[in-house]
Amino acid sequence: MVHDWGSRDASFVAINKKVLTRLCEIANGKDDYVTVPMQGSGTFAVESMLTSFVPVKGKVLVLINGAYGQRAKRILDIAGRATVVHETAEDAPPDLQEVEAILQRDHAITHIFTIHCETTSGILNPIEKIGALAALYKKSYLIDSMSAFGALPLDARGIRADAVAASSNKCIEGVPGLGFVICRRDALAQTKGNATTLVLDLYDQWANFEKTGQYRFTPPTHVIVAFHQALEEFTAEGGVPGRGGRYRNNCRILLEGMTALGFKPLLPADLQAPIIVTFHMLDHPGFVFQHFYDGLKRRGFVIYPGKLTVADSFRIGCIGRLGETQMRDALAAVREVLDEMGVTNPSTKAA
Amino acid sequence: MVHDWGSRDASFVAINKKVLTRLCEIANGKDDYVTVPMQGSGTFAVESMLTSFVPVKGKVLVLINGAYGQRAKRILDIAGRATVVHETAEDAPPDLQEVEAILQRDHAITHIFTIHCETTSGILNPIEKIGALAALYKKSYLIDSMSAFGALPLDARGIRADAVAASSNKCIEGVPGLGFVICRRDALAQTKGNATTLVLDLYDQWANFEKTGQYRFTPPTHVIVAFHQALEEFTAEGGVPGRGGRYRNNCRILLEGMTALGFKPLLPADLQAPIIVTFHMLDHPGFVFQHFYDGLKRRGFVIYPGKLTVADSFRIGCIGRLGETQMRDALAAVREVLDEMGVTNPSTKAA
Repeated sequence: MVHDWGSRDASFVAINKKVLTRLCEIANGKDDYVTVPMQGSGTFAVESMLTSFVPVKGKVLVLINGAYGQRAKRILDIAGRATVVHETAEDAPPDLQEVEAILQRDHAITHIFTIHCETTSGILNPIEKIGALAALYKKSYLIDSMSAFGALPLDARGIRADAVAASSNKCIEGVPGLGFVICRRDALAQTKGNATTLVLDLYDQWANFEKTGQYRFTPPTHVIVAFHQALEEFTAEGGVPGRGGRYRNNCRILLEGMTALGFKPLLPADLQAPIIVTFHMLDHPGFVFQHFYDGLKRRGFVIYPGKLTVADSFRIGCIGRLGETQMRDALAAVREVLDEMGVTNPSTKAA
Repeated sequence: MVHDWGSRDASFVAINKKVLTRLCEIANGKDDYVTVPMQGSGTFAVESMLTSFVPVKGKVLVLINGAYGQRAKRILDIAGRATVVHETAEDAPPDLQEVEAILQRDHAITHIFTIHCETTSGILNPIEKIGALAALYKKSYLIDSMSAFGALPLDARGIRADAVAASSNKCIEGVPGLGFVICRRDALAQTKGNATTLVLDLYDQWANFEKTGQYRFTPPTHVIVAFHQALEEFTAEGGVPGRGGRYRNNCRILLEGMTALGFKPLLPADLQAPIIVTFHMLDHPGFVFQHFYDGLKRRGFVIYPGKLTVADSFRIGCIGRLGETQMRDALAAVREVLDEMGVTNPSTKAA
């Protein structure tokens, strides 16, 4: 924090370039893709992707099964881009037959947008199958991979995505402050003049990088240098298989342990991404969520309230600098708090 | 960087609140004003101010005498807001008689926008006098105080500004990554629905703070905690008089020393803000700017190329963690480099 990184200084420019190149590699972008950074939270990156790729006269098929899909729809509404929505329950992936039917009947659709892992429930959406439909019907394909990028395989070229948005502070485990969009060069080249803002214009930022190698506006230098360090640690852990493997192990321990304590996960195993797990509240008179939350927090474990409309629930994350020890410690804390609350169902005793 | 600041954690929320309150105090906002943060560079804050305060049917009188005024005009053009421009040369403040004439003849104007210190030249614009015209003609008054905030007095209430945009990394000397807009509450309350983006909507962010005390989207926690530390150091230095006093002293030493070495500043003393100084190139056959720049850089001093269209020039900054010693060292380096280049005008010898 005390080093005054000059944003036009050669050493910063080199670090930034390494970051952008590495992100593109992680998505298997090769030379066909380029990473365009967008300072701000992940939502800044998603809004920049939507409003740079979708022209004012475009129309987006938005696949929604949670709050982040709703947010993308809201961004498009505010920015004056037409949408058609295919919404499924928070515990259900999109209905691909219905998606295809929509594509067949609405020829005005230009883009398809989906969320890779919708953290409202923790559901994994079928980005490959949606990509196949986008390719078949020749639609531009845009993905919000915010909470999944770096932990779940993502082959941007293979699934023919035009753009994938993510951020520094999820599975890459950097500090917050930088989002980015990995863009297919040919598609990005056609977005000139689409944007309805200056600061969120990906084309303009890209053109500036091509010309000068520099940001248009003062970048968050310290966040980017820290992101570079996080990417080095990500690579040292074995990249996507290594990072994703640790999270899958965390998720497995969590699911086994919580199930043994009597909790039921919302999602079946094949829909559960190893990012965040939604559990139903315990159906026991002694179980009071606020006491449960506070008891865990006192022990150093912060969980998430549920975000579902379909069920009364809470969520526990599997990502971040956590491994087997932390997950088992968390489960021990859950058991202690249940004991404190006098929640004594048979399976709790057995665990 | 290694502390995982939770953005909803009570200690972060308290630090953030102190930062926002202190910024409002610096602008003499008292209870009439509120600080709304906007992550990103200063331009993110300016774009959020313009597109949140100016409705789609508004019309902005944009006062331009440099690149940042041009950028504001570009933002408004892209966002589809009507403008009328009053442009003066980069070394001339707005012509207030002409500004008044425009306000008299164009009744569609709803807002006036100006730059406090336009760093293209380093000129100080007359924000008080423009504010008096805005008040007289009942126009909403928006100020970009990016490079001046914290060093030059700014009485938001006194000049009846509706909004003032600035950022973490100029005169407050924090790290980059957070902008902010100090808004008159009554004016901000009337901006609901104006914004044409989600992420840059100041009203929506403010409403969320009022309801929950929290950011709508993951904030750059580490940048904000560092900004809090920078504000503590700013206060310890004596606030605006202390910080501005150091910069004025830097500026005086720079002007005296450079003049003694034969350089001529672009601006007369009464238009020169103590932020950045533009000098004409030396009119001497041995003076080659690239050699001058490189020679200074080798000695650890980075200057700015000129941004002027009116004259061939370069710029030297007075802000940041610099005092008398650093300014005198910089002048010694300038002299050395001039000697290297064989630039031997009489005043150089005398100095």
